[in-house]
Amino acid sequence: MRIVDWADETEGGPAVVLLDQRALPQRTEHLHLTTVDGVIDAVRSLAVRGAPSLGITGAFGVALAAHRHGTGTPGARAAVRADAERIATARPTAVPLSIGVRRALAVLDGSADSTASTASTDSAPTGSAPTPAAVLAVARAVAAEAAAVNAAATRRAADLVRARCPERPLRALTVCNTGPLAAGPGGTALGAILTLHADGALAEVLACETRPLLQGARLTVWELERAGVPHRLCVDSAGPAAIATGLVDVVFAGADRIAANGDVANKIGTYMLACAAARSGIPFVVVAPEETIDPHTPTGGDIVVEQRGADEVREHGGTLMTLPGTPVYNPAFDVTPHELVTAIVTEHRAWSPAPSASAPRSAAPPR
Amino acid sequence: MRIVDWADETEGGPAVVLLDQRALPQRTEHLHLTTVDGVIDAVRSLAVRGAPSLGITGAFGVALAAHRHGTGTPGARAAVRADAERIATARPTAVPLSIGVRRALAVLDGSADSTASTASTDSAPTGSAPTPAAVLAVARAVAAEAAAVNAAATRRAADLVRARCPERPLRALTVCNTGPLAAGPGGTALGAILTLHADGALAEVLACETRPLLQGARLTVWELERAGVPHRLCVDSAGPAAIATGLVDVVFAGADRIAANGDVANKIGTYMLACAAARSGIPFVVVAPEETIDPHTPTGGDIVVEQRGADEVREHGGTLMTLPGTPVYNPAFDVTPHELVTAIVTEHRAWSPAPSASAPRSAAPPR
Repeated sequence: MRIVDWADETEGGPAVVLLDQRALPQRTEHLHLTTVDGVIDAVRSLAVRGAPSLGITGAFGVALAAHRHGTGTPGARAAVRADAERIATARPTAVPLSIGVRRALAVLDGSADSTASTASTDSAPTGSAPTPAAVLAVARAVAAEAAAVNAAATRRAADLVRARCPERPLRALTVCNTGPLAAGPGGTALGAILTLHADGALAEVLACETRPLLQGARLTVWELERAGVPHRLCVDSAGPAAIATGLVDVVFAGADRIAANGDVANKIGTYMLACAAARSGIPFVVVAPEETIDPHTPTGGDIVVEQRGADEVREHGGTLMTLPGTPVYNPAFDVTPHELVTAIVTEHRAWSPAPSASAPRSAAPPR
Repeated sequence: MRIVDWADETEGGPAVVLLDQRALPQRTEHLHLTTVDGVIDAVRSLAVRGAPSLGITGAFGVALAAHRHGTGTPGARAAVRADAERIATARPTAVPLSIGVRRALAVLDGSADSTASTASTDSAPTGSAPTPAAVLAVARAVAAEAAAVNAAATRRAADLVRARCPERPLRALTVCNTGPLAAGPGGTALGAILTLHADGALAEVLACETRPLLQGARLTVWELERAGVPHRLCVDSAGPAAIATGLVDVVFAGADRIAANGDVANKIGTYMLACAAARSGIPFVVVAPEETIDPHTPTGGDIVVEQRGADEVREHGGTLMTLPGTPVYNPAFDVTPHELVTAIVTEHRAWSPAPSASAPRSAAPPR
């Protein structure tokens, strides 16, 4: 399943190909975007979302601009730069989007990074003027890097869990959507679950629906169904109850940001799962790229929690479910203190930030 | 606001008056039911719900039958008994409904209980044949008893919390609906919150929406708004996060059943709030009638958790939010172990089932 990709030959010329996440889970539709305006519309309307997927989209969008305008003249390169600026600001708060754009754009300045050059020996320029193919090569490298990072982290997380948990098909629980749709090729926390499934080591996944925006019900269930992984959906508050009644062997979560001390900011509802996992002595494992760990944020207390709009909570499926105008408390994420975290697994390491005294009761030492 | 009541004079004769909970929170409408069939329809279609409210409705329904048929002849009394049987079985699993019916019906057998006789000195028969007024008096007594039980429990709970919490307007958090709508006159857990508000001791209530059926969003918010209590609505998973970030001074919950050791079965989502409250050292207080404590259930492990239908989770506001046919884990309630419970407050006592070693860190001794 292509989520963010490139097609050289379509009716309208080269195209950025996106799986339209607005239609999920009811319909699986791909967009073939042959114009930069089309890419910008897709980003703005959330046809594509999730930090790594946005970064890859931004890079492919610049490659599309390079193919449309060419790169042979100062005027053409200026037009590509103008389009790139518009893509980068299509969602102002999405930092990875602008990072992907900047990496692709750097080719025009003759400063494409070394990873891209290495990954694109077929098409990258060698000392000559930048070509559209060279920009595309960088975009492909951005996607390949995300895939490699996730593959390393999910393999490590699966191995760690198999070493710590009982030797039987495992029951895993997860929250939000951390599969390939949002987290880039291979996924992060959900990617670790898919890896366990590929290993034949998984019995079932409990997917928390993830109110208010229901990423679990809409996206995670879709990814599990496609992958043929046995699963059940539950309301978020049933997650801790499932843990307490012995229905779960391991909890997997992603991370929006990780403080230097190991405190984890992630989707609202993550903290309560960590509390329940600690009480029941099962591992609570975070899977995320190393870049998620922010050395400039000493603790979770230094993270400002985004408050989102009230209508996300007041309305369901377009229907008002409470009194109009009801005041709402709607934090986008919560912070799980490091003492509840069994391991933070990245492409480079498995880090256990919890002091050993409060490690889960049944946890074995890491491999 | 009348929730379940009696009206002597309506156009169609005497009537059972119900606040139509199907229309809440968008519309406040009363039903005036002058026929037993109307009462049965209202019960079946969930115009009235909640155990105590159903018990009172059942008793008033029998009073209505007595007024329609009379009670002076064996044939009339047989007709009342037949109607009563139909009311009692309108919702087969609602035990309190049949208890309310049986108490009112007992008048016909000359065995109305002493509480009813005491509460109905104006109209109860004294050794003579049962009259419709005598049946009505028992129904009114059922309602008055529920009010007295709740008044005692909520006063005690409010006093206990004011003694344990900081001396400032308190921030309370609650789940599901435990106000007068469902829990009878005065309410239970929400009743304690309303009592604190009447005392001038309450700053704000956080109401968890209570997925999947959203009793918090639909009913608790409506009751708080009517009572003029400052409040905010949140998704269930934001409750533990609010506790962890210091936004909550006390958690109040009701109970479906309490085991002999103090383990509390209540709406799904209660357990995670108790976990979070214990970690943050704030009181977790259960308010319920003494009859909720079941001496024949030794521990929470002996309580079988009802699993409810999948569509409750799959659909929101009538819209399918996941893949059709997605398997669902949908437990109706969870069990909070007694070691996480600061106090179980009834009309008779405040019981602290937690061993003192694991009492909340900041808790003072109970009064």
